[in-house]
This record gives sequence, C-alpha cells and structure tokens, in this order.
Amino acid sequence: MAHEQFKTCIDACNACADACDHCSTACLQEDDVKMMGRCIALDIDCAAICRLAAGYMARGSEFSAALCGFCAQVCEACGQECARHQHDHCQACAQACRQCAEACRSMAAS
Amino acid sequence: MAHEQFKTCIDACNACADACDHCSTACLQEDDVKMMGRCIALDIDCAAICRLAAGYMARGSEFSAALCGFCAQVCEACGQECARHQHDHCQACAQACRQCAEACRSMAAS
Amino acid sequence: MAHEQFKTCIDACNACADACDHCSTACLQEDDVKMMGRCIALDIDCAAICRLAAGYMARGSEFSAALCGFCAQVCEACGQECARHQHDHCQACAQACRQCAEACRSMAAS
Amino acid sequence: MAHEQFKTCIDACNACADACDHCSTACLQEDDVKMMGRCIALDIDCAAICRLAAGYMARGSEFSAALCGFCAQVCEACGQECARHQHDHCQACAQACRQCAEACRSMAAS
Repeated sequence: MAHEQFKTCIDACNACADACDHCSTACLQEDDVKMMGRCIALDIDCAAICRLAAGYMARGSEFSAALCGFCAQVCEACGQECARHQHDHCQACAQACRQCAEACRSMAAS
Repeated sequence: MAHEQFKTCIDACNACADACDHCSTACLQEDDVKMMGRCIALDIDCAAICRLAAGYMARGSEFSAALCGFCAQVCEACGQECARHQHDHCQACAQACRQCAEACRSMAAS
Repeated sequence: MAHEQFKTCIDACNACADACDHCSTACLQEDDVKMMGRCIALDIDCAAICRLAAGYMARGSEFSAALCGFCAQVCEACGQECARHQHDHCQACAQACRQCAEACRSMAAS
Repeated sequence: MAHEQFKTCIDACNACADACDHCSTACLQEDDVKMMGRCIALDIDCAAICRLAAGYMARGSEFSAALCGFCAQVCEACGQECARHQHDHCQACAQACRQCAEACRSMAAS
C-alpha cells in the first residue's frame, strides 16, 4: 500500500516541513533578519511543497514520483541557503532539507 | 521552542493526515464506493486541516491553539464516520482521527 | 451548487490569499523588515487558511461555514496588523483582509 | 510586481482549483461513482497543486516557473480524464484544466 511503501519519504517530508516552518519563524526573530530574506522565502516554499508531496504519496497519486523529483530541487535549494547561516535552526533545517532531498530523489527514481 | 513544545500534536496531525489521505484513496477502490461518499469527503477535509494545523504549530502561530480547537472538530466527525465502516483503512483512520482530536483538544486548552 | 453559491466568498478568499502572499514577500524586502515580523507571520497564516477555506467551499464541505468563521478571525487579525504599516502592500493587504473577513462572516452565519 | 505580473496564471490556477474541487464532490454523488475514481483522484491532486502554484506566484518565488511547468502536467492529465466523462461538472472542469495548463506552460517558458 502506497502510504506504507512511501513511509520513509513521507516522514522525511513531514520532518522537513516542520524544520522549515520553525526556521522561518526563528529567522524572523533574529537581529540580522535582513540577511535572512531568501532563507525565509525558501523555508515557506519548501514547507508547502513537502506537505503537498506527503499528501500525494499518502494518496498513492500517479504523480507522486514526479512531484518528489520537483520537491527534491526545492529542498536542495533551501538546504544550501540554510547551510550558509550559523543559527542553530538554520543548520537543523539544512540537515532536514538534505535528508528530504535524498528521500525524494529515491522516490522519483522508483 | 514552538515546534518542540507542540511535537506531540504535530506528530498526531501528520499521522492523521496520512491515514485520511490513504483512506480516501482506498475508499475509492472499494466495491461499495457509493456508500463511502461522506467518508471520502471528510477524509479530504481532515487531511487538509491537519496539515495546516501542523504548519501553524511548527511556525508557533498565535492562532495555533484556536486552529487546533477547530481541527479537533473535523477529526471527531471524520473519525465517527470512518468508525461506521469495517474496511481496515477506515478503522485505522478512525483511530488516527481520535488520537489527533485528543491531541488537538489538549493544544486548544493550553 | 456549492461552488457557485459560495462564489463571492471563494473569490474574496483567493484575493486575500494573493494579497497576503504578496505582502509577506514585499515585507521581507523592506528596510524596516525587523518591524514587519508579525505582519509576515500573519500573512503566512492568513494566506494558508484562506486557500483552505476556498477549497472547503468549492467542495461544499459540511464544515465550510465553521471554517469561514475561524478564517474571519485570522483575516481580522492580519488586516489590523497590516493597517498599522504605511507600505502600499500592507494597506492593500489590510483592505483585502477586511473584505475577506466580512465575506467569511456572512458565510459563517448562513 | 510578481502578483500582478503573474495575475493571469494565478487566476487560471484559482479557477482550476475551484472547478476540480467542485468536480470531485459532484463525482462522489453520481450513480456511476465507481467509474469516476481516477477523475476524483486527479481532481484532488490538481486542486492542491493549483492552489500551491498560485501561492508560489503570489510570493514571487524563485521556483514559480518550474512549479508551473509541473502544474501544467497535472492539469493536462486531469483535463484529459475529465473530458472522457459527459457530466457537466467534468466537462467544465476539463475546460478549466486546459486553460490552466496553457497559462502554466506560458509561465514556465517565461
């Protein structure tokens, strides 16, 4: 069944969305928020696409693999931007993004 | 931090959304799909509000508690409808909905 | 049919989501971004709930009215915060929020 | 500004999501609902990606064009499935999907 077969990737997407949502809020409270603009924008994009991908997979959508391929690109970009900042939430988000990108690439190739 | 403080409820929301999404797809493949109409409709509503609630909590939104109060009502209704059907996916979804409703009520009262 | 009956409120929700999404991005590019934190956070919340409400109404969900009642509260809060800032995008967003709150209250009372 | 530059495509995405959401509910009430399974599933996928694309464009996301390219594929598939059914809501949805696919392809190529 789709939702079990895809469980690893669904979990990675949910964890990444959580990390991105937390990172966007934490960035807004940093003193150097002006520097965090692209990080916040990508956090919002990434959280949204990860939650959407989790839904597609849980429904066993025929577009699951293709959407995960796209989701991996957003995660990759968000993870690279987050990795440039030393805040703990950015570093944690970068790791969640990298793990999700990898899980999504595996899904996309399946 | 919000996303850790709320982790139990976020996890319950993600699990419930997953179960609802899976249930809606499985219902569409049942022979008695005609009887599953309200179950499918509530599954779609419930998955969407659960994913939204997870996002609000992960961002530490000032509306987290209020939204969880509303989310609990949708989970309750979806769980009761699912519980009426004997399919495994409906019974599993009913349980996920009940657990999420309880977690959301706790959040709403906090 | 639901999606026609609710058309005024669906259109208001879509317009409000658009205005909020635009406002959040524009806020991130302002010099005084540090002051715009709550505005950005509420923009994100409001855009998400408005798009969800549009979906509930378009599907004729049994929770349409209740969700619109909640959506009106978020729109109200977002509109009041936006109204405090003189940026054009904030003022435009405040107006879209007020109109959406009114349309949602009508829906909730129906 | 992004949300004005992209207005045609945002409007097409919102209209398509509305039509898909309405179609999925109406399909569930048809006598031949068993035949409508793929139509319903694609309606759900298409409504979700269209609302996401509207949000990306309204925020002027750097992934707007790429997401619209993916969205066009889902709209195309959903429109072709809907076109196979004679119900008014399916025919209306097919048309909304085709228009949205075209608007998204233009965005993707820009």
